[in-house]
Amino acid sequence: MSIAEVQAFSPSSGRLADHTTPFVRNEWYVAALSEEIDRTLRDRWLLGVGVLLYRKSDGSPAALKNRCPHRSFPLSRGTLDGDEVTCGYHGLTFGPDGACTRIPSQEVVPDVVRTRSFPVVEQAPLIWIWMGDPALADPTTIPEHPWLDMPDYTHVGGYQHVKCNYVRLHENVLYLTHFPFLHGEALGDVAYAQAPFEVAAEGNSVRITRRLEDHPVNAGYGAAIGNLGHRVNRTSESWFKTPAFHVAHATVEDLEGGVEGRTDFHFKILHMFTPESATTTHYFWASARDVKIDDQAFSEAGRKRTVSVFLEDVEALERIEAIWTREDDDFQEISVAGDRAGLLMRRIIARRAAQGA
Amino acid sequence: MSIAEVQAFSPSSGRLADHTTPFVRNEWYVAALSEEIDRTLRDRWLLGVGVLLYRKSDGSPAALKNRCPHRSFPLSRGTLDGDEVTCGYHGLTFGPDGACTRIPSQEVVPDVVRTRSFPVVEQAPLIWIWMGDPALADPTTIPEHPWLDMPDYTHVGGYQHVKCNYVRLHENVLYLTHFPFLHGEALGDVAYAQAPFEVAAEGNSVRITRRLEDHPVNAGYGAAIGNLGHRVNRTSESWFKTPAFHVAHATVEDLEGGVEGRTDFHFKILHMFTPESATTTHYFWASARDVKIDDQAFSEAGRKRTVSVFLEDVEALERIEAIWTREDDDFQEISVAGDRAGLLMRRIIARRAAQGA
Amino acid sequence: MSIAEVQAFSPSSGRLADHTTPFVRNEWYVAALSEEIDRTLRDRWLLGVGVLLYRKSDGSPAALKNRCPHRSFPLSRGTLDGDEVTCGYHGLTFGPDGACTRIPSQEVVPDVVRTRSFPVVEQAPLIWIWMGDPALADPTTIPEHPWLDMPDYTHVGGYQHVKCNYVRLHENVLYLTHFPFLHGEALGDVAYAQAPFEVAAEGNSVRITRRLEDHPVNAGYGAAIGNLGHRVNRTSESWFKTPAFHVAHATVEDLEGGVEGRTDFHFKILHMFTPESATTTHYFWASARDVKIDDQAFSEAGRKRTVSVFLEDVEALERIEAIWTREDDDFQEISVAGDRAGLLMRRIIARRAAQGA
Repeated sequence: MSIAEVQAFSPSSGRLADHTTPFVRNEWYVAALSEEIDRTLRDRWLLGVGVLLYRKSDGSPAALKNRCPHRSFPLSRGTLDGDEVTCGYHGLTFGPDGACTRIPSQEVVPDVVRTRSFPVVEQAPLIWIWMGDPALADPTTIPEHPWLDMPDYTHVGGYQHVKCNYVRLHENVLYLTHFPFLHGEALGDVAYAQAPFEVAAEGNSVRITRRLEDHPVNAGYGAAIGNLGHRVNRTSESWFKTPAFHVAHATVEDLEGGVEGRTDFHFKILHMFTPESATTTHYFWASARDVKIDDQAFSEAGRKRTVSVFLEDVEALERIEAIWTREDDDFQEISVAGDRAGLLMRRIIARRAAQGA
Repeated sequence: MSIAEVQAFSPSSGRLADHTTPFVRNEWYVAALSEEIDRTLRDRWLLGVGVLLYRKSDGSPAALKNRCPHRSFPLSRGTLDGDEVTCGYHGLTFGPDGACTRIPSQEVVPDVVRTRSFPVVEQAPLIWIWMGDPALADPTTIPEHPWLDMPDYTHVGGYQHVKCNYVRLHENVLYLTHFPFLHGEALGDVAYAQAPFEVAAEGNSVRITRRLEDHPVNAGYGAAIGNLGHRVNRTSESWFKTPAFHVAHATVEDLEGGVEGRTDFHFKILHMFTPESATTTHYFWASARDVKIDDQAFSEAGRKRTVSVFLEDVEALERIEAIWTREDDDFQEISVAGDRAGLLMRRIIARRAAQGA
Repeated sequence: MSIAEVQAFSPSSGRLADHTTPFVRNEWYVAALSEEIDRTLRDRWLLGVGVLLYRKSDGSPAALKNRCPHRSFPLSRGTLDGDEVTCGYHGLTFGPDGACTRIPSQEVVPDVVRTRSFPVVEQAPLIWIWMGDPALADPTTIPEHPWLDMPDYTHVGGYQHVKCNYVRLHENVLYLTHFPFLHGEALGDVAYAQAPFEVAAEGNSVRITRRLEDHPVNAGYGAAIGNLGHRVNRTSESWFKTPAFHVAHATVEDLEGGVEGRTDFHFKILHMFTPESATTTHYFWASARDVKIDDQAFSEAGRKRTVSVFLEDVEALERIEAIWTREDDDFQEISVAGDRAGLLMRRIIARRAAQGA
């Protein structure tokens, strides 16, 4: 793609998703970490909708619209008995399918009295939700993320609330030139920012692969591998899979003998973005590695480092969202060559949104 | 009214008052408690209008629009001299009829320089205001509330600011099935919630009468009467009189001999709702009884209990208002048979609002 | 102008500037005090636009739009190297003319990649900025304010953020009848409020001259001059020069012999209003005098007194702005004879705004 082609994207806000684009509803999003949901009634806003999350008697998760269809009281302020939830205002009771099973002040319960239920699928440590047309909810389309289960990998993870639109979070992880400027050199230096990259689109997914050859290992991966000071080939494959899911495959190939005979090391960073509203996002993440997999102390230190880095992203993106909110002029973003993957992603989201929720 | 008829109300937001309905201005509303108003300049927002309240030299209340017609400075930040108020910005002076009597920088005061005055009527402990067409202000249409003066009654009262639309507060007190679910069983248990009721509309007022026969007295009334453990007939008559005024008549008939030979006991709960804005309300209330009328300690304990209960209503209604504000979808309330009185009330308010302020 | 003529202004909100009027962009505004700007990257919102202010290597000020044209990150969060600013997100670098000089992830920098730069002129202690068409920026049109430099004058100054529209601040200083009502008698008593005045319009400027003859000197000027108790002639010439600049010339002529043989004393109060948004204003001010020019302690006391008075104006104007924001009715201001200068000023601003930014 030439610069001219890239520029041609920019003024077309009608074609590039941004904070004004409707949500893509026919998609699986992470609703919660498995550990967050139990027999208490928990509420969370997802794609602009208040959702009630709880576990049924058999341990499986359930999700209802968290708004009594009668007078809008949040069902999460009611009570759970077996699999049924009773509203804490006038006492209407609803099953996990959304149907009303009792109205205290009358004997007959009309069929029309029901709240919405949402398909949910647990793949520990994650619980996925489908906010679109239930007839289209196919669990086999949940993006694969095997590294959270594989015996030769370990991972850490977390959650962060972010006051910015989810599209900007996707764009952030598709353009890693920001590493040295926003995060300092531990993640990647200016040579990494300038490394050549290739972009590939496949259906509704986009991949950008950046490769930096024969360069000193960055501090972050060097600490994990134990090869600080060695020269390595580093490959970063950032993959936008769905509006809800991005995975980065990072591979480090040690050019100076490696560590204890091993020369290839793998890192998988999962970014799971669930819109809360047009300008806020639930950011679930996990970072898996196939090195030092039994070193709990290292994992904990790595978790803290990752949180610290993500908070830098969050601060930057919240500042950007605030500028969009405050500055009421005819600002048009200008894109550069490195934005190609992000722009393709934004075209995909805009197209899917236009196709209807 | 059949379920089908009740359902037929629901989708007709054009016919049922809600937070989008204009205020009914041609009506008397409680502006303040008598004890709140004195020779200081007090401001309060009523029906979306900033109002200045004070007492004239003769002790009678006055109400002006609290916005200098010159440059919008709040008159409540000025000074009171006799019956006249001088603006604290450029010194214009206004009488209690709203006419300007002095402009410091010129000798002639044109007739056009005046602020609005509002008819006010004191019926201690309440001061009523008319925010509509002054030509229609007839004090004889102020709803009667004799129990605040009658020698065989005593009462407690109070004020609560609520962050919800006043129509929801009316609906709340017309559908008492919420008692056990929101307040616990002291006010009424599930049998009370399920008790049969009758609805009657008369002109622009609506009454719902709920009767629970031969049932243990509820803890609240039992404590007042001193007949805890006795079986009673309980009648609750909830009466929407005007958009500003609701009175509940509760009667307890002791079926096990009563107390000291007396078997009938009466409680009158007055709810006076004055909209502050579309989403906030001044809630004035009084609770009168014809039992233990000289027991000050019991009155004080009762006042505290009532405040505690009303704060539960307030919390629930504020949560509901917040959901209406936040969730931007095509939510349609579903009504049940017990809503009949509330729906009739909402039709009355919608019709009166449509007839013009 | 007759009362009838003045009234004729009032309903014409289309012709009188208020908080809904677009900003007059083709004008010099004070961006900052000289002492505020150095080699750090400072951001300030001016006329609704986020602006980055800094000094170049040669010490002269520079102003850029504080929003990276790439992905809206505030440039003030980046780094300054020589005269160039590097964005703290993806590392794009911009010169003080707004042109991009480096994009880390590509070799060619297209001309289209640039941020806006604004003409700035320093006339210590003030830095002026032009937010309109750069081709029209003529530094000779910056209003004169020689008293900040003249050897026979001394001055104090300051800055105040105000939550009101700048037009109301102009109106405030054109109608000094508010002195005794808002500030007490130290600035001027009721006789001052009632003193005759003349209004003169010249092109796009307006002047109102108020003259109070043979009256005891007011406490404020009396303290500066040292002639408390003397009768004086006082002339106040309040001059709206531009939407950004107002100067008041106050002259006191001592009628009882003066102080040490001198009878004429001069005060120059500069009000520099720079809109931050439609409802907030940067208020820069300076107060110069040709008496007690070497008395530092008196200057400091005077500065404190002036701040105290301005905070009374600020409180009043913020209350007024809040009423305009909150009260959603068809309020129409009524004007009086003393408003003539303010109304002319509002016509000028409305006309200039209508002529285009």
